[in-house]
Amino acid sequence: MKIGIVGLGLIGGSLAWDLQHLNYQVIGVSRKESTCDLAVEMGIVSAAGTNLAILKGVDLVFVCTPLGAIASTTLELIPHLQENTIVTDAGSAKGAIVTAITPHWRNFVGGHPMAGKEESGLKFAQVNLFRDNPYVLTPTEATPVESVALVARIVEALGAKLYQCTPEVHDRAVSWISHLPAMVSASLIATCLKEPNPDIQQLARQIASSGFKDTSRVGGGNPELRRMMAEYNREELLRSLYQFQETLGEFISLIEAENWDALHQQLVMTQQARPDFLNHNSLSDL
Amino acid sequence: MKIGIVGLGLIGGSLAWDLQHLNYQVIGVSRKESTCDLAVEMGIVSAAGTNLAILKGVDLVFVCTPLGAIASTTLELIPHLQENTIVTDAGSAKGAIVTAITPHWRNFVGGHPMAGKEESGLKFAQVNLFRDNPYVLTPTEATPVESVALVARIVEALGAKLYQCTPEVHDRAVSWISHLPAMVSASLIATCLKEPNPDIQQLARQIASSGFKDTSRVGGGNPELRRMMAEYNREELLRSLYQFQETLGEFISLIEAENWDALHQQLVMTQQARPDFLNHNSLSDL
Repeated sequence: MKIGIVGLGLIGGSLAWDLQHLNYQVIGVSRKESTCDLAVEMGIVSAAGTNLAILKGVDLVFVCTPLGAIASTTLELIPHLQENTIVTDAGSAKGAIVTAITPHWRNFVGGHPMAGKEESGLKFAQVNLFRDNPYVLTPTEATPVESVALVARIVEALGAKLYQCTPEVHDRAVSWISHLPAMVSASLIATCLKEPNPDIQQLARQIASSGFKDTSRVGGGNPELRRMMAEYNREELLRSLYQFQETLGEFISLIEAENWDALHQQLVMTQQARPDFLNHNSLSDL
Repeated sequence: MKIGIVGLGLIGGSLAWDLQHLNYQVIGVSRKESTCDLAVEMGIVSAAGTNLAILKGVDLVFVCTPLGAIASTTLELIPHLQENTIVTDAGSAKGAIVTAITPHWRNFVGGHPMAGKEESGLKFAQVNLFRDNPYVLTPTEATPVESVALVARIVEALGAKLYQCTPEVHDRAVSWISHLPAMVSASLIATCLKEPNPDIQQLARQIASSGFKDTSRVGGGNPELRRMMAEYNREELLRSLYQFQETLGEFISLIEAENWDALHQQLVMTQQARPDFLNHNSLSDL
């Protein structure tokens, strides 16, 4: 089976690498000639080029461009494909993308590999990036069952933990545990910058330790990626942000009222609940 | 010089260990006989007991009890002390403690070693816990200069990074980078629990990855410690929480207005600002 990968960054490059190891023939497409050359040099693709036309004849294409380019790239890609080619993507929001592409290409299976690292770009690509991490597929009622099954088999061959749900369920779940934390974390950093007294501002920076470091990590990450999360999952993100505002207000009310027992109960609850959200995977999402 | 340590938990135990290595004679006090026995067995104190009276004759006392017990323990301790004994503490909020103790003991130097780990208790005590981490002293105008100098010398001998400021400046700075993140992080966990659809709730837990893990870490920590942070630094914590509410509201407004360029600018700013808060220390605060 021939597999095309459009977008040879961290995700596309790491996918290419694993798929080559699984003995698929992988053909890469990047906007940059130099990235195509690097992918060939690294030996992670059999061929690579800047023109989508080289994907003519492939059986499956992973569109691994940034979120904002997935739909437009896929629409550009379609005229070059055989009728039965399956297209899947790697975007972190699914509703808008599935809605934009499905009317034009029935054989589209929305996908979200929840793996990554701080760094981006082909040179940070690695083998087994997806192993033991969640990989969500979001078929709709219109998606051919055999297309979903084929993508699912490949996801499992990558060693990822496969989940399937609707684009809507995906977007809401991802908003809670990924897009909301990113905006909350960014708001935390922005808040700390507002201390007007320069001595206090400086001391805060000097004594900030791992508590601040961890809580601010996702808010200090790639701005483009986070902007697109918000743009492509706006409705669910807003829903989760409103809920967060409400919960934060409840915490504030308890502190205002000096209701320490109730605050303690809340903190016991959050301590007890957190482990249920962990231990399901090994690496980082972004 | 003889040094007393009241409260043989992670902080008190680690302090005792380092001070023994620095050739001070260390005498420990714990409410529990078994903790005293363990401290003696570990060889980190020359003697230990449950009665504060054994600290008669020491030159310096570190009060390392939980935040809520520092003032009352120090007031109990005072009748046993020589007139020139210096008392310092290890609490993460300083204003309320300094105000409570200073009228009763002039030789009190508020202190906050910003080191710790997830675990608590003497059995997790370790050598060099304070090395390269911030350690803030909060003398007032009434604190004898030579007492501050003595505590400062010991802090530096521990390898910690010494900062000095007023209790008020400490409490505000710590609120931004430690107490606020704890409440924001706890609110994040509590928010994610509010998804009413059990399938989405379950999927969110399954696919939560390192972004959620890091952002939720301090909100899922010791409830007692966090409740006391709020109780003892209530005013500054509320001030930082109100500022956070405002900033969060600004992020929400940008997303509501689909003002992606302005959101992007905010995210560029938070990405650029974050490194200024890091790299100043090596271990974790709590």
